[in-house]
Amino acid sequence: MMENSNLDRTFAALGDPTRRAILDRLAQRAGATVSELAEPFAIKLPAVMKHLGVLGEAGLITRSKSGRVVTVRLRPGSLRDALAWLQRRELFWSTRVDKPTAYAERKATQARARK
Amino acid sequence: MMENSNLDRTFAALGDPTRRAILDRLAQRAGATVSELAEPFAIKLPAVMKHLGVLGEAGLITRSKSGRVVTVRLRPGSLRDALAWLQRRELFWSTRVDKPTAYAERKATQARARK
Repeated sequence: MMENSNLDRTFAALGDPTRRAILDRLAQRAGATVSELAEPFAIKLPAVMKHLGVLGEAGLITRSKSGRVVTVRLRPGSLRDALAWLQRRELFWSTRVDKPTAYAERKATQARARK
Repeated sequence: MMENSNLDRTFAALGDPTRRAILDRLAQRAGATVSELAEPFAIKLPAVMKHLGVLGEAGLITRSKSGRVVTVRLRPGSLRDALAWLQRRELFWSTRVDKPTAYAERKATQARARK
């Protein structure tokens, strides 16, 4: 089980759209340089570096330096504990807390998803 | 699909151990008053109110007032989009990104879990 502080860092890191977009870009390739990652975003390199720092602290990415080039990669498996935390709660909330409401909400979501 | 800003709020709300503990307490009962929720925590009522504000903004709880008593409840289904976001990534990262590493890490995690 991941320690509490790691869950804190993981969830906090995911609470930002640029950081989630960086992760999605990394998922499309084996690795990317910092400038490749920064390219599509309308923010400056130092801001990207700061986001990468947060993602690194949360253990979601690794950074390796070769000469002056830093290559960033996803760290496989690093979302597992956050996912497990959510899975246990989502299941429990849906099946136990206020059953009729949960059922109605699930049906409404499914109906919307089919549209 | 949940909007980006809702995902921001959900993940940010989950990035705090007191807020996650409040959610877990709420999952054990049909509803709780603010003072019932505050009771096990070594923090003052205004701090608890602030955490409830963050959880409410993220749509994870509902608050209803009857006279002077505020009852707090979980909002069923409110974790679903955050869960879906993580599920898609976790699967993808584990199966595609750096396969041997992902496999080795998964095995190591499983071995640790069996201990």
